[in-house]
Amino acid sequence: MTNLQTDIVLSSRVRLARNYEDLPFSLMETPGNATLCEQRTLNALSLENADEGYTLYRMREMNEPQKNVLAEKRLLSFDLVERCPMGSAFIHEEKQVSIMMNEEDHLRIQAILRGQQPEKTAELVYQVEDALQKHVRFAFDARLGYLTACPTNTGTGLRASLMLHLPMLTLSKQMGAVNQIVAKLGLTIRGIYGEGSEALGNLYQVSNQATLGRTEEELIEAVNAVAKQLIDMERNLREKADRNDPVQLEDTISRSYGLLKYARRMSLKEFMLNWSRLRVGSALCRIPHSLEKIDALLEKAQDAHIMKWLGEEVQGETLNEARSQRIRKLLS
Amino acid sequence: MTNLQTDIVLSSRVRLARNYEDLPFSLMETPGNATLCEQRTLNALSLENADEGYTLYRMREMNEPQKNVLAEKRLLSFDLVERCPMGSAFIHEEKQVSIMMNEEDHLRIQAILRGQQPEKTAELVYQVEDALQKHVRFAFDARLGYLTACPTNTGTGLRASLMLHLPMLTLSKQMGAVNQIVAKLGLTIRGIYGEGSEALGNLYQVSNQATLGRTEEELIEAVNAVAKQLIDMERNLREKADRNDPVQLEDTISRSYGLLKYARRMSLKEFMLNWSRLRVGSALCRIPHSLEKIDALLEKAQDAHIMKWLGEEVQGETLNEARSQRIRKLLS
Repeated sequence: MTNLQTDIVLSSRVRLARNYEDLPFSLMETPGNATLCEQRTLNALSLENADEGYTLYRMREMNEPQKNVLAEKRLLSFDLVERCPMGSAFIHEEKQVSIMMNEEDHLRIQAILRGQQPEKTAELVYQVEDALQKHVRFAFDARLGYLTACPTNTGTGLRASLMLHLPMLTLSKQMGAVNQIVAKLGLTIRGIYGEGSEALGNLYQVSNQATLGRTEEELIEAVNAVAKQLIDMERNLREKADRNDPVQLEDTISRSYGLLKYARRMSLKEFMLNWSRLRVGSALCRIPHSLEKIDALLEKAQDAHIMKWLGEEVQGETLNEARSQRIRKLLS
Repeated sequence: MTNLQTDIVLSSRVRLARNYEDLPFSLMETPGNATLCEQRTLNALSLENADEGYTLYRMREMNEPQKNVLAEKRLLSFDLVERCPMGSAFIHEEKQVSIMMNEEDHLRIQAILRGQQPEKTAELVYQVEDALQKHVRFAFDARLGYLTACPTNTGTGLRASLMLHLPMLTLSKQMGAVNQIVAKLGLTIRGIYGEGSEALGNLYQVSNQATLGRTEEELIEAVNAVAKQLIDMERNLREKADRNDPVQLEDTISRSYGLLKYARRMSLKEFMLNWSRLRVGSALCRIPHSLEKIDALLEKAQDAHIMKWLGEEVQGETLNEARSQRIRKLLS
């Protein structure tokens, strides 16, 4: 069995960008073509019986919290949620596979798996692509590969990313150096919710930047290789901290645990800070909660999830109060 | 029964300054006279059978932690502990009465009682004085009253002080104004360990400044009157905070409770901050611990008490670690 490195790697995500060869790129502003794209996709999957367990979500038919819950689960991109009224997604929640339609490209097929297993994750998206390709034709150039709305995605159209938890690298101010290493290898490192987002919770996504000129296997291999380096660096720092001053480490973890269990109001930002310390505690067996539980907490403590749990749209201190309630319940 | 106002008043303390009429003031540097002062006091008390339950402590025969434990209990002054090698004290721990010898004056007779009851506290010190006066003569001037080493204590030689917990007055930046009110009435307000000490834990001692020109009753009445004003102000602020935003108040209290229960290392300063919030929580019935228990915690978490509990002299992080252990145990 493969080691999923869950102490540092939360998840693997792979997405493919695909476009129908007979439709213009970027259908956001042509409702007729957008509907055609959606129907064609659903039909193709249905003909292959590949639609079982999937639910269709249309952005224009959902309210903000409903959309945001799926975005917080990373089953929808924030781009789709915020900027694509004609967008929709066909989602298999259990398998964590989603087929986004009418986002930047006609199709964004993505899958997420726990820990470091981008190869298996890629298999899931290729299964979907295979089913589709029995009935549709994608824009493809023999020399360039798959064609996409934005040239950076042209080629394999594949982006493989790993979500890494790097609190010690962050604390030791090494993320600047890490960024440089990563960039030199043609990869990129970003915050939890993708481009331009802050590294809340010391969470970083490492992914390939370009998709052209390398095979799918090479791209995934490159991401795995960089992740391996970062995992080693982070693990060494954790071991060093534990060796040098175990009580200091335990104090930091335990204080965050205490705050999460006792606060009556907590902002998302403060939650993410304490959650990060809690995750280190779980990885080092310093608190009585599994990594699975801690990672589930991350999702459940996000704004839209809190509103869903509460059953109403709230904000400000009322939201922070409900968040604390929810956290206490989940940790008790 | 009197209301002791324990939600705000921790304790009442009264001390008398007395000097033997035939010995020069300030015996710190004359070992022979200092010994004479000590023997005379013990003999007088013994003749009256007023020495039962008392233990004699000589500063020169004790190590630092032993002395500091008694100072933290406020049964010894830090002046006696730090600057009086010929000093000693006859202490009744249960009654919280101590007779310090060869400090600034020959005798400093003091008693401490829980809550606001300076009159009863005064009775305890006058009982000791009465017993002594059957056998000794104190320096006394018909016009000035009792004579003392420092003229500020001349007169009644009495200082009555109340230990007040004023977190909301501190938070609302009203302590400057409070200082002025107090000074105008010929009283003084100081930190927990007396003159020049910081108001750690938002604890303040209100006491009379001069002892001349007023009777004992008047001095105590003045202290009670100022305390009453401060108690009202503090209580109003607490009620207002609880009315305006009860969750905010509860959040502050509960976070401190969580930190005290979960930290693995805590400095005295941080302890005092969190202890103060915990005491408000106890006064407002927001935590499951009585004020008695919280006040006992204050004493038990001080440096020398921690070393006594640990059975060894420690400092720095080791001390802070032991403090956290002790606090966790006491709050569990």
